[in-house]
Amino acid sequence: MESIGVVRSERKSPAEVPIQGSRHPDEAAAIEVFPDYAEGLDDLDGFDYIWVLWVAERCASFKLKVVPFMDTVERGVFSTRSPMRPNGICMTPARLLAREGNILRVRGVDMIDGTPVVDIKPYIASVDRVEGDLGSGWLGGRDMDRKGDDRFEK
Amino acid sequence: MESIGVVRSERKSPAEVPIQGSRHPDEAAAIEVFPDYAEGLDDLDGFDYIWVLWVAERCASFKLKVVPFMDTVERGVFSTRSPMRPNGICMTPARLLAREGNILRVRGVDMIDGTPVVDIKPYIASVDRVEGDLGSGWLGGRDMDRKGDDRFEK
Repeated sequence: MESIGVVRSERKSPAEVPIQGSRHPDEAAAIEVFPDYAEGLDDLDGFDYIWVLWVAERCASFKLKVVPFMDTVERGVFSTRSPMRPNGICMTPARLLAREGNILRVRGVDMIDGTPVVDIKPYIASVDRVEGDLGSGWLGGRDMDRKGDDRFEK
Repeated sequence: MESIGVVRSERKSPAEVPIQGSRHPDEAAAIEVFPDYAEGLDDLDGFDYIWVLWVAERCASFKLKVVPFMDTVERGVFSTRSPMRPNGICMTPARLLAREGNILRVRGVDMIDGTPVVDIKPYIASVDRVEGDLGSGWLGGRDMDRKGDDRFEK
């Protein structure tokens, strides 16, 4: 897996960012896409939201059971959004404010400064927005509305 | 990047699967998670939908501009869901019917038989469902409702 870019943000540690950005629409960052990949950003203008796929670089290697931020007991890692997972890929739907060359200005994000980005995709409502009253297992209906901590760090 | 499992399906080529499964809720498949990772599926029961992250193994290496299935002109690859992207990671929200040990029974999917799976995540409505009338750039409001073809294959 190769990085296509990097997050630039004033947030320097997990304790400073929300565990999920979606409830924090003002959390701003920039994604600096490396010049070799910048042409791939063409035509992204006009999409209000994008998926940012990223890797929690400071995260320890994976565990099959983790205590997620929203619980106090161990859960299977694939039933959580913990970064401490095989391949370490995390994803965030981010509001796209602007593309300026190889820079994307985004909001509603949860990545710390320096986070490697591995993919950008358009958020497509007819594909990504699953309608209805969705069962959410151990999480129940709770909002993922808190900051992180260092539990998953090396 | 390591595979954590593999898709088992009756669909053997891109021309047999929808380009996005969300409009095809009856498209069934099984995800066989390798036994070493099966414990990580604990607690996934109760989530109605999951994200399946996968790699289009038969896809050629990436291009920065591609002609996506829904258009006839080249677009920046990061403004499309084409598999022909850096790192080759695709993602599908799938209805989770059942977990049976290391097997997940899913519907509404778009992966062909043998596709490597690199991650499973719970679909969390408060995180993943972006509300509102979302701009969708070059795609406009069109439904991604067609089958694939071999344009991205080696």
